[in-house]
Amino acid sequence: MSAGAGPLADLLVAPEAVITVGAPTLDEALAAQGVPTVPVEWRPPPAGSVAAVAEVTADQRLAQANRTAIDRMAGARPRLVDVRTAAELVGIGRHQLLHAGPPVEWGAASGPLRGAIIGACLYEGWAATPDAAERIAGSGAVELSPCHDHASVGPMAGIVSPSMPMWVVEAADGRTSRSTLNEGLGKVLRYGAFGDTVTERLRWMERVLGPILASGLRRHGPVDLGALIASMVAMGDEGHNRNRAGTSLLVRALAPDLVRTVEDGKAGNRAGDVADVLAFIDANDHFLLNVVMGAAKLVADAGAGVPGSSVVVAMARNGTDFGIRIAGTGERWFTAPAAVPDGLYLGGFGPDDANADIGDSAITETVGLGGFAMAGAPAIVQLVGGDVDDARGWTELMYELTLAEHPTWTLPPLGFRGVPFGIDALRVVRTGVVPIINTGIAGRVAGTGQVGAGLVRPPLECFTAALAALAESARAGRP
Amino acid sequence: MSAGAGPLADLLVAPEAVITVGAPTLDEALAAQGVPTVPVEWRPPPAGSVAAVAEVTADQRLAQANRTAIDRMAGARPRLVDVRTAAELVGIGRHQLLHAGPPVEWGAASGPLRGAIIGACLYEGWAATPDAAERIAGSGAVELSPCHDHASVGPMAGIVSPSMPMWVVEAADGRTSRSTLNEGLGKVLRYGAFGDTVTERLRWMERVLGPILASGLRRHGPVDLGALIASMVAMGDEGHNRNRAGTSLLVRALAPDLVRTVEDGKAGNRAGDVADVLAFIDANDHFLLNVVMGAAKLVADAGAGVPGSSVVVAMARNGTDFGIRIAGTGERWFTAPAAVPDGLYLGGFGPDDANADIGDSAITETVGLGGFAMAGAPAIVQLVGGDVDDARGWTELMYELTLAEHPTWTLPPLGFRGVPFGIDALRVVRTGVVPIINTGIAGRVAGTGQVGAGLVRPPLECFTAALAALAESARAGRP
Repeated sequence: MSAGAGPLADLLVAPEAVITVGAPTLDEALAAQGVPTVPVEWRPPPAGSVAAVAEVTADQRLAQANRTAIDRMAGARPRLVDVRTAAELVGIGRHQLLHAGPPVEWGAASGPLRGAIIGACLYEGWAATPDAAERIAGSGAVELSPCHDHASVGPMAGIVSPSMPMWVVEAADGRTSRSTLNEGLGKVLRYGAFGDTVTERLRWMERVLGPILASGLRRHGPVDLGALIASMVAMGDEGHNRNRAGTSLLVRALAPDLVRTVEDGKAGNRAGDVADVLAFIDANDHFLLNVVMGAAKLVADAGAGVPGSSVVVAMARNGTDFGIRIAGTGERWFTAPAAVPDGLYLGGFGPDDANADIGDSAITETVGLGGFAMAGAPAIVQLVGGDVDDARGWTELMYELTLAEHPTWTLPPLGFRGVPFGIDALRVVRTGVVPIINTGIAGRVAGTGQVGAGLVRPPLECFTAALAALAESARAGRP
Repeated sequence: MSAGAGPLADLLVAPEAVITVGAPTLDEALAAQGVPTVPVEWRPPPAGSVAAVAEVTADQRLAQANRTAIDRMAGARPRLVDVRTAAELVGIGRHQLLHAGPPVEWGAASGPLRGAIIGACLYEGWAATPDAAERIAGSGAVELSPCHDHASVGPMAGIVSPSMPMWVVEAADGRTSRSTLNEGLGKVLRYGAFGDTVTERLRWMERVLGPILASGLRRHGPVDLGALIASMVAMGDEGHNRNRAGTSLLVRALAPDLVRTVEDGKAGNRAGDVADVLAFIDANDHFLLNVVMGAAKLVADAGAGVPGSSVVVAMARNGTDFGIRIAGTGERWFTAPAAVPDGLYLGGFGPDDANADIGDSAITETVGLGGFAMAGAPAIVQLVGGDVDDARGWTELMYELTLAEHPTWTLPPLGFRGVPFGIDALRVVRTGVVPIINTGIAGRVAGTGQVGAGLVRPPLECFTAALAALAESARAGRP
């Protein structure tokens, strides 16, 4: 965009372009006159946050605390090690479910979350009909708690019930995270669908998919997910709504050992079942999403619990509220009502059918993937809307909010620059620029399923509340 | 790059940038003064070609003939249908070999081609030692002919011997092409290596890899290679030196049926062998290259044999000469000495170790892939050198040489523009700009193997000679 710095540049009397900062009206007026503009999104900090911004900025712990959080996140080294049931991993049992996002009860739950709860009750055999399931859940007999509180994550409704198989991701320091297995598209529990098709698929996943993946993965040994994510990001996946390369790379890596379990004395899987597993994965470009989420959860958690740090370590939505956690304020959620995504709709659906933003999948953006990495995934615009320049622009904007660039998750179209990594809640509040998230859109009526995909942004209030709490901890001189 | 079309634009008195056409000296002088430049590569047609350019340009058949050739190429619909031996497919037998590029005899063959001929004689059991193999080949007892003359292609040395399994690619009109199976990296025949390791791998490919792929592929049914190439190009592969996404997508698609052949009454493959096949493919990101080459050969051949057309339908190198064919002059080769690629070298090797350009793999560039599609494959620069802007620049330059853009092989970074498709020999001669090819570099001493990868360009003389022949056909008013 530069006009050059040579002798001719002095003669320039007209601006090549006008950079407008936080002034969309000026930007539109200039554009209407044919003046090229470079609009920069910026808002002054909300009036109520000025003191918190000053206090956190002045906190002498801040720089080192943020460095510590980010170093730990970058050094997490997530590896895919196992598949086991939620009962074994999380210890949940009868009438206990995990869900996406910050805490929520049945009364405040949105349609797709209610649909998924009903579906899980049917799948677990806690109820024989959707009506019966709704009665149990409505009575308060089903105990709900956030996946995030159990080192777990799940996309969309994020419902985890005891019999479900889950991926186990392990960090260099032995910590683990867990995520559900992806069900594919169409009528699936995570989008709030329930009934026989949903139940049968979940039972097959429990009986065949989970055990076969487990035996193949144990035979193969740990899969380095940091390296896998680096590869897929170089192949046009951003790890949230585009996981086509990553899914393919995982299949390719595991397939030989999956097949060897057929002749393996211990596992002795049937060839037909192994083939069904491979076909199920092949039919679903999003299969790896949950694995990436598990890795992202482990990476984000590595940065949690650093007193004084303003680094965001969780962003999650339950279909009603958006919640975030930051490194310096422990497990406290800062929540505000979730927005409805803006995007492209599947045939027959429109914005009126859309539920508010839902799912733990924003954990990918929390670690620089998803919406943050769209510059490396230009084909994503065919799913979520916008054009290739928009995709690049979103990534460039996100560097304004982050304190680092990931050392190995690099974006070839940006000359191998690392993805924007380590979201700083202080920068978010100071600039008024909130993260960008790309997401599937669930139908707001229980049982509908997916209605589209698009972009959404968290409410600024989550970040101002987090910053206020961090300022309070700074005043108290303790976490 | 535009300064805008509004009222302010009128006030501009300094150029935003100077476009220099075929004037690198002016370009450098302006750049030294800080004036931004857009250098455009251009040379006037060679003196001897002025008449041919005029005659071909004036040929009334030209526009329609080129449209026909390109429409046929774009409509070829290549599908991967089978794997069978060269003996069955090509009909070659004892002491008969195919090789890459235009025709060449042992006496003029380069080191890597000789090495591969020796390796093939050992593999087929025609000789017991390398010395004995060299004696047979040197005596003229081994009959050599170009792969291209048998609807076949092979990378690097491109040696095809009777027992080798080959991919079969079929077009919508029933035509077929064939290509070898990729051996992987390291000491491999196609780079001119020979000996026990090479022989044993080739025998395993003949005994296990070929038959298992054949049974899996027949069970699966045809794989739509046009769609596969579209997908991989959207995932950062250019189909010549980057085939990582494509290899993964093929594994993913075929794996379920490969596994089903284990229980299949007819095939009854061993699970361990199927696992070995999957592991062999997983170890080699270039595995799909030969499949892409087979598809490209079929696409290019669809455009061949159109009287009056200046569209290039083959570019191939035998390690000594570079040869091209154009649509309007039948099966005639136009050759000139091949250049040495400019690139990055593997540890311990340098430019002095490099053989001249070799292989049929430039068939990928002939149909808009490889060097022509590098704008969509920014990560390729880590292998062949240059930076991301260079990769984009090469693709943009190639649009100057082509008559069309491929309808479905689109490049997300260029806003989903189709790859440059249908190289026009007339444009090449008129502008003096020759195609760009990215390529592996073979060691020039027989038996060395790969020494690097880089970029190379064909000699302009191939195109001037082709144009002269086309002009002659125009004068004669017949093909």
